[in-house]
This record gives sequence, C-alpha cells and structure tokens, in this order.
Amino acid sequence: METKIGNQSYEAFPMNGGQGQYSYAKNSNMQRIGADITKHISRDAIIEKLDVESLVQHSSNVIRIADLGCSVGPNTFFTIQNIIDAVNLKAQSQGHGLDSSLEFQALFNDHAGNDFNTLFKSLPEDKLYYAAAVPGSFHGRLFPESSIHVLNSSYALHWLSRIPKDIVDKNSPAYNKGRIYFTNEDKNVAGAYSAQFAKDIESFLNSRALELVPGGIMTLIIPCVPPDSKNAFQAQANIMENILAEMANEGLISQEQIDSFNMPIYMAASEEVKELIEKNGKFQIEKSELLYKLFDNKSQQIDAHKACMHLRAGFEGVFKNHFEEEGIVDEFFIQFEKKLAESPFLFSDPAYKQLGGLFVIKLLA
Amino acid sequence: METKIGNQSYEAFPMNGGQGQYSYAKNSNMQRIGADITKHISRDAIIEKLDVESLVQHSSNVIRIADLGCSVGPNTFFTIQNIIDAVNLKAQSQGHGLDSSLEFQALFNDHAGNDFNTLFKSLPEDKLYYAAAVPGSFHGRLFPESSIHVLNSSYALHWLSRIPKDIVDKNSPAYNKGRIYFTNEDKNVAGAYSAQFAKDIESFLNSRALELVPGGIMTLIIPCVPPDSKNAFQAQANIMENILAEMANEGLISQEQIDSFNMPIYMAASEEVKELIEKNGKFQIEKSELLYKLFDNKSQQIDAHKACMHLRAGFEGVFKNHFEEEGIVDEFFIQFEKKLAESPFLFSDPAYKQLGGLFVIKLLA
Repeated sequence: METKIGNQSYEAFPMNGGQGQYSYAKNSNMQRIGADITKHISRDAIIEKLDVESLVQHSSNVIRIADLGCSVGPNTFFTIQNIIDAVNLKAQSQGHGLDSSLEFQALFNDHAGNDFNTLFKSLPEDKLYYAAAVPGSFHGRLFPESSIHVLNSSYALHWLSRIPKDIVDKNSPAYNKGRIYFTNEDKNVAGAYSAQFAKDIESFLNSRALELVPGGIMTLIIPCVPPDSKNAFQAQANIMENILAEMANEGLISQEQIDSFNMPIYMAASEEVKELIEKNGKFQIEKSELLYKLFDNKSQQIDAHKACMHLRAGFEGVFKNHFEEEGIVDEFFIQFEKKLAESPFLFSDPAYKQLGGLFVIKLLA
Repeated sequence: METKIGNQSYEAFPMNGGQGQYSYAKNSNMQRIGADITKHISRDAIIEKLDVESLVQHSSNVIRIADLGCSVGPNTFFTIQNIIDAVNLKAQSQGHGLDSSLEFQALFNDHAGNDFNTLFKSLPEDKLYYAAAVPGSFHGRLFPESSIHVLNSSYALHWLSRIPKDIVDKNSPAYNKGRIYFTNEDKNVAGAYSAQFAKDIESFLNSRALELVPGGIMTLIIPCVPPDSKNAFQAQANIMENILAEMANEGLISQEQIDSFNMPIYMAASEEVKELIEKNGKFQIEKSELLYKLFDNKSQQIDAHKACMHLRAGFEGVFKNHFEEEGIVDEFFIQFEKKLAESPFLFSDPAYKQLGGLFVIKLLA
C-alpha cells in the first residue's frame, strides 16, 4: 500500500515574510483591491453554482476551503471569510437554519518557505473556522482526494514552477542573453515562457481536479493581459533590464549574472488562460471577468513608490537569491523606484490594464 | 448559522524554535527515547484495536492523523510515520492490497507561537502523506467534528493551560510565595495544581471526543510519576528555587519576581491520569504502560549537561517571559547546570522514574 505524493521539487519564490517595511503583509494592497472588487462576483457565483446541501450530505457537515498561494495575510483572511459568508448564505437558502452544525476548515497553502509563523500570529481572533496551513507547491498534490469544497487562488498562478530550461541554455535559440523577461518580438523566448505556463496550469488543474469534491468550485484571480491592453509587466521588466545593464557597466554586477537571470513569472493573455482551462477539460468556466472593467478610480492612487514597494514585496526574494552581494538588491530597488517615477504613463495611461482576470470554474462530475 | 470555535485564550508556552544550540529540535532526545521505546506498543495497539476497514468506508480512503503538541520535529515525523506504518499493516491484514488508494493526511498541532516555519522546512522529503499544521491550544477545539482517525500527543499534556489562579493570589491559602512549584506538603498549592490539571485533561478529552471518529484511537505519552517513584521534577524545581533565591540575594532579580513566578506544568501521579480518563468516560483505556519499565540502559547516558539542555529547550521561553532583564536567564541556566551536576543522584538513583506513562485510549461509539 503506497501513497505517492509525487515529485514536489519545484522552485519556490515566497513573498517577503514578517511585518517589516518591505513585507508582503504591509505591501499587498493592490491584491486587496483585487479581492475587494471581485468579492461580489465570487460570492454570487458560489451562491448560484455551489450545491451546499448535496456537498454536506457527503462530508458530515464539514466544508473545507483552501487558499493557494496565501502568503502571510491579511488578504487571505478576507478571501476565506468572503467564501464562508457565501456558503452560509447558500446553505440558509437551501433550508439550513442558524442552528446548523455546519463547520468550516480553512486550509492556507503556500511554499514551505513562506512565513507561516506570521500568518498564524495574525489569524483573526474572532474567526469562525478551523485553520490549517499546508506547505508545498500547488503545481503538485497538496490535499487528500475529494477533500476540498471551495478553493481560491489569487495573484499566484502567474508564478512559474521553474524558469523555462531553454532560456538559460546557451545553445538554445531561446537563450535569453542580456534580458530578464521577453518582448513579443522574442518569439523563441516568449514561446518558452508560454509553454512553461501552459504546463504549469495543466498540472495545477489536474491536481485540483483530484482534490476538489465533484461540484466543488474554484475562484482564481490570475494576473493576465486583456486583449485591448498593453503589457505593463513587459514595460516594467524592460526598466529593470536597463538598471541591471547600468549596474553591470559600473561593475557592480557581472554580465554573466544578468544573462543567467530571468523573471520566474508569466503574464498570459486573458484568452490564453481561458483556452488552457478549456483544453484541460476537467472544469467548466462559470464566470470570467477582466478586473479593470470592475475598477473605479481607486486605481488612480497607485504611484511609483507604491508600485515599487508592491513589486519589491513580491520579487525581492528572487533578486536576493541571484544577486547575493551585500547591498546590490537595495541599490537596484532605489534605482527602480526612480525610473518608475520617470515613467508616469505606466500608472496613468489607460492602455495599461494590468489587473488580470477572475475565473470562477466548477469541477465537472 | 454560527460555527463557534470556542474561547481559545489559553496561555502558550512554545518550545524553543529554530535549529540553534538551545533549540527543541536539537534537545529533544529524551522525548525521542520515549517515542522509541513505546513504538511497538503503539503500533500493536493500533493494529489490534483500529478497524481501518470500517473507518475507510466512512471517509473516502483518507486517514487523518494528528500530533498535538508537535513542537518543531524531528520527533513528530517519527511518530506520524510509526502510526502510518501500523495503519498500513492493519489495512493489509484487512485485505487492502499494495495498490490501495489509502491516503494519509498528517496534522501537526501546537500553539500559534510554535516555530512552524522550522517544522515545514524539516519535513521528510520522502514523506508519503499530506502535511498540514494546525495552530492553537489543544485544550480547545482544533479540528472539525469526526475528522481525525488516530491522534497522538507526547510530552505535552503536563503543560497546564494556565497557572492556577489561587497560587498567585496573595489572599488565597494557596498563595505560592517564594516557590515556583510545590512539594507534597504544600496541600493547598498541590491541590490548586492538581485541580487545574484535572480541568485541562477534561477539556482535552471532551474536545478530542468530538474530533475523533467513533472507534478512533489516541496514543498519549504523559510525563507522570509512577506509584513507586520519587518525583524528579519536584527535586529539579527545588534546585531552581534555590538558584532564584540566590539571585534575589545578589540583587539580580526581585523577591516579587519569584513570588509571582510558577512553573506552568504538573507532573501527575500515573494513577491520577488513569482516574481522570476513566472519570471522563468517553474513552476506553486499551493499554497503559509505565515507560521506565520498558527502558534499558540508555537512561544511563543522561547527565547534568544533557538534562539542563533538555529542560532549557522546554522552559527557556517561560523564564524569559517572566525574567525579562538581559542575561538573567542565561545566568540562571549556567547555575542550573552546575547544581544539577552536584546532584548526580537525580540521574543515577533508580528511585527516580521520571519517564511518564503511555496511555492508548479508544473513543467509545
């Protein structure tokens, strides 16, 4: 009798832990805005599409909710509570009273290197659910079969499980010399990124298909590029490349360090995400919405400083891992904020619609 | 529809985290010895008393195993694996083949302040189970109803959920002035400790009775004093009291600090533990063994240094919480090791049987 958990040797890029000035906990307001503006859509989809009555009959009154790529909070607590509220509303509409014995377990997932200690210390005191943390890459299996009823993942699926092999292979036509991301003109590099993303989404969906109960629902917020938008991350990565090139000129880092460095994320086109879900075939798309369409003028509050802090909370670990010399990463982000401030169009030009999409999908029976 | 998790405002005394010289991870060999010598008894009890076939029929092939008071490893991994091996053996004997789809989920519990980051980083790479961490006091509810099949708690239940109120109340006959524990002559103080322990065991068993599936099994290693043994912890606490009194004489700490400090643990008599389980009435005692009876000459390897490191890994947090001045706690443990070395009888006198007892209990249907 063997229970294989599978080969979980994925690369891990955790957000900055703790509660300090560069922490994810203090610099994840943009993700919070995303959770806020999609709150009603997620709730309505759960109320409309989740058959709580039938789920509960198979699971002794326990509803398990997972958040994949939860980081350290506080956004994950907001998301879990929103899902619980929706399930409760649906349960009531299906005849469960206020005295029901429905119990909730929230499963917070992120890489084993995530700062779960901070997550646990900041759990809401008045939470009405049992909390558990599950370490590991969501590109592999995380939970026992048919054990999760509702699953969320926000701003996490654009992280690749690994850097595409070819783009660091000097003998490959996709070798990404001198760059850390790709432009649409780099067909080979773009193709390598896109292929890795497709593989990752496929393994994510296959694992979740086993873990969700039939009829279970996923709400996914995936950073991606709407059809009528310019790619903001490509512009930001280009700024990063220029800074690194200058730092190499000054002898602070080597050209070889730049050649071997690549951003481990991929901003897909929104249609590309949709097609991958459809191609996988195990889930039905119940809703898909582009976030910028839901957005009001809150977006105007983003400036170079906030954008830099936001990107630093997410990417500092990736840079530190590669550029290990003392002070290099601090210097990089000082320069990055300056250059972002010199490119105000990134925050004001409505052609950049960088908020991604919400996909609500349901596991087919 | 309200799901109350209960009032979890218990005091938390986590073991030393990390991997440093005073860490629990590096100083928990005595607990490992306990796990080692009880391994076969726990295994045999699970094989004999756990009806895997019937459990699996109610839980879609998932067996959930919890370890309460897991600290940071590595002992908890050893314990979980031992339980999984036993369940697999039993499942095979009940006709499950090697190709069975039996899946295991291990739930590691300790206070929210426990160093779960270290626990996750040291998870065995070849583990054949899904891992999850559950933060919170085991004196309250931790898991959804009827969701756990096998539950272990080793060297944890002697930690009280709080210091008995009366022993820090200047107007109570149980006021424990000048002492940090009790002798058997202090009837009032001993009574207050014993009453708190009884309350804690009762709340522990009541919570677990709700969380275990009917027929589920608990294996508990509880530090306690066999009927024919002297109380080693009383002797150690007495040494601690003398050191603190000296430190007060030297003006390093105040008398008031000693008066308000008490050890948050209770070493019950083994019979007392048995009676509390029987009085609770929700579990049947399948086995109870005194650990010293299972012990061979490994015990001879314990000396003053090892004993001090062992106690420091467990109690340093408690002392630091109370004696906050820089250097006081370091000085205390330097003195403590010296005094332990002057009391070799604590390690050589066979009258001290300080290893506690193993209780295997099964939830009544």
